[in-house]
Amino acid sequence: MADKKIVGVIGAGRIGKIHTEDLVKFVPGVKVKAIADINLDDKIQAWATNLGIEVQTADASEIINDPEIEVVVICSSTDTHAQFIIDAANAKKDIFCEKPIDYDLSRINDALNAVKDNGVKLFIGFNRRFDHNFMRIRKAIEAGDIGTPHIIKITSRDPGPPPVSYIKVSGGLFFDMMIHDLDQCRYQMGGEEVEEVTAKGAVLVDPAIGEAGDIDTAVVILKFVSGALGIIDNSRKAVYGYDQRVEAFGSGGCAMSGNDYPNTIQFLNDKSVSRDLVLNFFLERYAGAYIEEMKLFFKALQDGTEMLATGEDGLKAVILAMACKKSLEENRSVKISEIVG
Amino acid sequence: MADKKIVGVIGAGRIGKIHTEDLVKFVPGVKVKAIADINLDDKIQAWATNLGIEVQTADASEIINDPEIEVVVICSSTDTHAQFIIDAANAKKDIFCEKPIDYDLSRINDALNAVKDNGVKLFIGFNRRFDHNFMRIRKAIEAGDIGTPHIIKITSRDPGPPPVSYIKVSGGLFFDMMIHDLDQCRYQMGGEEVEEVTAKGAVLVDPAIGEAGDIDTAVVILKFVSGALGIIDNSRKAVYGYDQRVEAFGSGGCAMSGNDYPNTIQFLNDKSVSRDLVLNFFLERYAGAYIEEMKLFFKALQDGTEMLATGEDGLKAVILAMACKKSLEENRSVKISEIVG
Amino acid sequence: MADKKIVGVIGAGRIGKIHTEDLVKFVPGVKVKAIADINLDDKIQAWATNLGIEVQTADASEIINDPEIEVVVICSSTDTHAQFIIDAANAKKDIFCEKPIDYDLSRINDALNAVKDNGVKLFIGFNRRFDHNFMRIRKAIEAGDIGTPHIIKITSRDPGPPPVSYIKVSGGLFFDMMIHDLDQCRYQMGGEEVEEVTAKGAVLVDPAIGEAGDIDTAVVILKFVSGALGIIDNSRKAVYGYDQRVEAFGSGGCAMSGNDYPNTIQFLNDKSVSRDLVLNFFLERYAGAYIEEMKLFFKALQDGTEMLATGEDGLKAVILAMACKKSLEENRSVKISEIVG
Amino acid sequence: MADKKIVGVIGAGRIGKIHTEDLVKFVPGVKVKAIADINLDDKIQAWATNLGIEVQTADASEIINDPEIEVVVICSSTDTHAQFIIDAANAKKDIFCEKPIDYDLSRINDALNAVKDNGVKLFIGFNRRFDHNFMRIRKAIEAGDIGTPHIIKITSRDPGPPPVSYIKVSGGLFFDMMIHDLDQCRYQMGGEEVEEVTAKGAVLVDPAIGEAGDIDTAVVILKFVSGALGIIDNSRKAVYGYDQRVEAFGSGGCAMSGNDYPNTIQFLNDKSVSRDLVLNFFLERYAGAYIEEMKLFFKALQDGTEMLATGEDGLKAVILAMACKKSLEENRSVKISEIVG
Repeated sequence: MADKKIVGVIGAGRIGKIHTEDLVKFVPGVKVKAIADINLDDKIQAWATNLGIEVQTADASEIINDPEIEVVVICSSTDTHAQFIIDAANAKKDIFCEKPIDYDLSRINDALNAVKDNGVKLFIGFNRRFDHNFMRIRKAIEAGDIGTPHIIKITSRDPGPPPVSYIKVSGGLFFDMMIHDLDQCRYQMGGEEVEEVTAKGAVLVDPAIGEAGDIDTAVVILKFVSGALGIIDNSRKAVYGYDQRVEAFGSGGCAMSGNDYPNTIQFLNDKSVSRDLVLNFFLERYAGAYIEEMKLFFKALQDGTEMLATGEDGLKAVILAMACKKSLEENRSVKISEIVG
Repeated sequence: MADKKIVGVIGAGRIGKIHTEDLVKFVPGVKVKAIADINLDDKIQAWATNLGIEVQTADASEIINDPEIEVVVICSSTDTHAQFIIDAANAKKDIFCEKPIDYDLSRINDALNAVKDNGVKLFIGFNRRFDHNFMRIRKAIEAGDIGTPHIIKITSRDPGPPPVSYIKVSGGLFFDMMIHDLDQCRYQMGGEEVEEVTAKGAVLVDPAIGEAGDIDTAVVILKFVSGALGIIDNSRKAVYGYDQRVEAFGSGGCAMSGNDYPNTIQFLNDKSVSRDLVLNFFLERYAGAYIEEMKLFFKALQDGTEMLATGEDGLKAVILAMACKKSLEENRSVKISEIVG
Repeated sequence: MADKKIVGVIGAGRIGKIHTEDLVKFVPGVKVKAIADINLDDKIQAWATNLGIEVQTADASEIINDPEIEVVVICSSTDTHAQFIIDAANAKKDIFCEKPIDYDLSRINDALNAVKDNGVKLFIGFNRRFDHNFMRIRKAIEAGDIGTPHIIKITSRDPGPPPVSYIKVSGGLFFDMMIHDLDQCRYQMGGEEVEEVTAKGAVLVDPAIGEAGDIDTAVVILKFVSGALGIIDNSRKAVYGYDQRVEAFGSGGCAMSGNDYPNTIQFLNDKSVSRDLVLNFFLERYAGAYIEEMKLFFKALQDGTEMLATGEDGLKAVILAMACKKSLEENRSVKISEIVG
Repeated sequence: MADKKIVGVIGAGRIGKIHTEDLVKFVPGVKVKAIADINLDDKIQAWATNLGIEVQTADASEIINDPEIEVVVICSSTDTHAQFIIDAANAKKDIFCEKPIDYDLSRINDALNAVKDNGVKLFIGFNRRFDHNFMRIRKAIEAGDIGTPHIIKITSRDPGPPPVSYIKVSGGLFFDMMIHDLDQCRYQMGGEEVEEVTAKGAVLVDPAIGEAGDIDTAVVILKFVSGALGIIDNSRKAVYGYDQRVEAFGSGGCAMSGNDYPNTIQFLNDKSVSRDLVLNFFLERYAGAYIEEMKLFFKALQDGTEMLATGEDGLKAVILAMACKKSLEENRSVKISEIVG
């Protein structure tokens, strides 16, 4: 037991709780020693106690300053990510940080520089990379099963829009929703870079979203340096649930994922052949992906292999979202070089 | 054009019309010269004229006696099959005959002997052998794709029961319905013979069927000489349509067919994921099979290759149906040797 | 029989033969009296004779001038379409014409004016509108099953590129391939007009296509006046066959088509679960659509209802293809108003 | 925390470990206090310690006699089940016991009587009842979605045969394999009783299995008292993995399950459309079912509702297996009344 990685988690909100429970239950060789949450209360304490977590604090610096803690898992609000990365890096701890790193390029760069300067590891929580379906497509591409990729097509639709209050602070659809798909495109292309994006959008779901300055329906074309094309379509509201599909088409074939269902049953009556709706919520749909990313993060730490979703990946996704926003606003294709200067 | 096979069709009921139209439209190298129907009327004549059929008669002997006609297609009522086979065989014509040949073993044998003695060809209309799905399974078995067959499983359910009046004369479920599936089992097994059958049945769809002395739901196990097992389940009424599936399981794998649908559309709404019902009627479901069997019959005549559904196959199917009936009546497994004596 | 529509077909190439055979075999109430082909030869004559077509000529004016002929089906080369439409319209005949009408807007307008001035009917052969799958999606939209359409997504990939020599004269991918999909988008949207297109393309399949001035991979976004978005992706080469799918997503749900397969068999062995490849060629995939469009054309003529693919539709598709070409060339979004001036 | 059910587990073999870990990780309101294993060793102790289990013993009576323990989970070898049930019942503890209870009817009855006399609860580990697919079919039947059930059809094939040494002591295919499916049939029929069974079998997979006195391929027909029919087919070896499907057909429709797959990806290349093989092993396939059954067991204990798989169910399954064995041996249908006397 002496060899277990000692972990501290910052942030015990929805995603912080998921990561913590997954670490406790499913990731061997890990001990969650401490949890910090700025809103620490009895409920969080009871939950943490029940999981056997010794230290429960409202002060994240207790984790940063604990010399026994080797890994910090950052699940706090986005505006705190960059600073916690810097602090943890300076304390020579390896870091898992939820996406996005930040919405400001210079703050992201500061964080990445701290990571680099201190020689620590940083893993960004692009959980969808570790989804059983999408990871399988990536493996097929790596194995050459579809030849050279020509088109990556992503369908990504939410079961319902978030509150307008959230949209006002999230940065909008490109930053809170499509950023996953932008990263997924790069992931499927093996990290090949995007040269140009073109974004089109509309307010078709709820006028209140438009009044808040955002769109609720979007289509984006990515042009990769090889000439390969990416297509993403997003909607804030698919009445049939959470629609998450990736298709990779290439010179040698195609790999296409379907949605995940709660069961395999076909019901036949005198009206139709039907099945139950797709898994409806991201916590269900990506439950396995959250576990897998934690397993792979700690495995990579242990094996000394590279992080499967780096700080650079986190930076690139934000840049792409920025370019999409600009493309939509100016109704023209936008080169990535225009953003990074 | 001089080389076309000259054909006469006996019987212009539903199936006779289908075969005739398929011959005219889809089978190259064939000329339907004559149609005979005991109930010849204006409507049949108009239909035949429109298809360019010269001879329209109420007297089948006009076809039998026409020296120009080389092939007779028998689509008249079952009780006339054996005699028409004998007559056509004696007139040295090749024969296509709808199934079943007859319900009486000695009459079947008389017909088969006439065929043999005259050296003509006989093809029995087991159309399901030529269904795109079932034929593909058979090809997979022949190619060794599933290794040695261990289990053949057939699901065969009608969209609705026939009139009770029909059931009273048809010989019942084993003779008018399961006979197809009994033949299909033998076909998939490459003609390997059945050693024993066990039939179970029930009246679950309509008590009137029970009162008529028949069952409407049945399950049969066939034991082949190699030890392989066949399973058939039949129902007179599947509210969702015509359910026709075959599964072949063996030492090296499995081939399983699904039903045929009118389209491939998935509909997703806030209740379910659905699709339109399966093809509902045998004329739709087996439309392609009827065409294919005629093509293959004439191709085999032309190439001098063997018939793909022989008189022997027709005889065997009737024997199996008899054994099933006996098994149900006596509530025990019945050896085929008990039937053929 | 006196009431049959008398038809003349101009052009006995591949598509002319298909339409002619479909008319003879599957469309009741129609008599194909004449076939004209500029390259009339023995083979065409034998084929026509066999189908019972009386008049066989190298001179299309024999059809145009035959007062008995009420309907002209134009299947000749694209450069002759506009003139034959004008001639047939002036001769007061109803017209079926293969797409595209022409590549020149003023010639198209001349043809459409002739149709209008003579009060005849014109049906453009957008056969994919009559595909069993795509027509079913359209019906679902019309029935309100998906609510208000938000996104129409079309995947359309050919099994292999045409000869480069063809690409040089066809007008390129947008005109010879995507034009179908551009029309399909408008069709699924119930004729709602497109406001703007954005096209991206690449040469990924064969450099020779690029040298000929064309692309072989393309993605297009259409913006409809309602704000709804269309997405089309095309590739000249899908090694797995002819990939033809449409997805319609709306406020109330989604309808998505799969490809068509030759059978429904799943093969399971110790390596994978597999099925045979999708239908590979447009003649197989759209065989039913060709029959359906002819049936619907003649039914509409008989019922006096509107044409289901009008000259206006033909014009619009060409305009969209022009806009796509301009968008690609100028690397910017192009308003349709820029094309029609 | 004071309200947690205190549990002791007897047997730390494969299935004992699964149940224990599931209890610790997934079942709220439960505390596993003790584990007993006759072969207790360092490895088991380390595993138990890591899970926070206080008591680790080779002597099951420590669990039986611990007054704090309210629930005993019996995962030891089959020959010990009956005695541990009796001991735990006499100690007034509620009981979860792995199937089968025993192979001897009188010993089973002794155990069930002890349970009854002591007024404790007994839940038999028919985990497949709690599989996401099969449970969903049962719910559909309960909801009346398929009307009155007419046919229950179960396909159940293992990825490979167990060692012949195991077959010699397991009681054979009907007792170690089909017993699950026999229970599943009764479960889907809502506990309706079977009147008669007919079993057919063969040695097709491995002659050594035949030499050991068992079969490796079997088909069974169950006749329920309502006349409904059950069909089960078993094979010891499906090269494509673990094939587990249930189909329920009734007067109002049909519900049919497919297998579970590790992902939803379709791979298309120039040879075929394929997907990865089905989940291969029962631990993967039924992982969720094991969790679900424990949750439902403790939920029923808490709510005071009835056990979802009772001792009676355990008894009935053994009776059915006995009847199948007799049917095969005597090559005739066997009434259940012949077994229970």
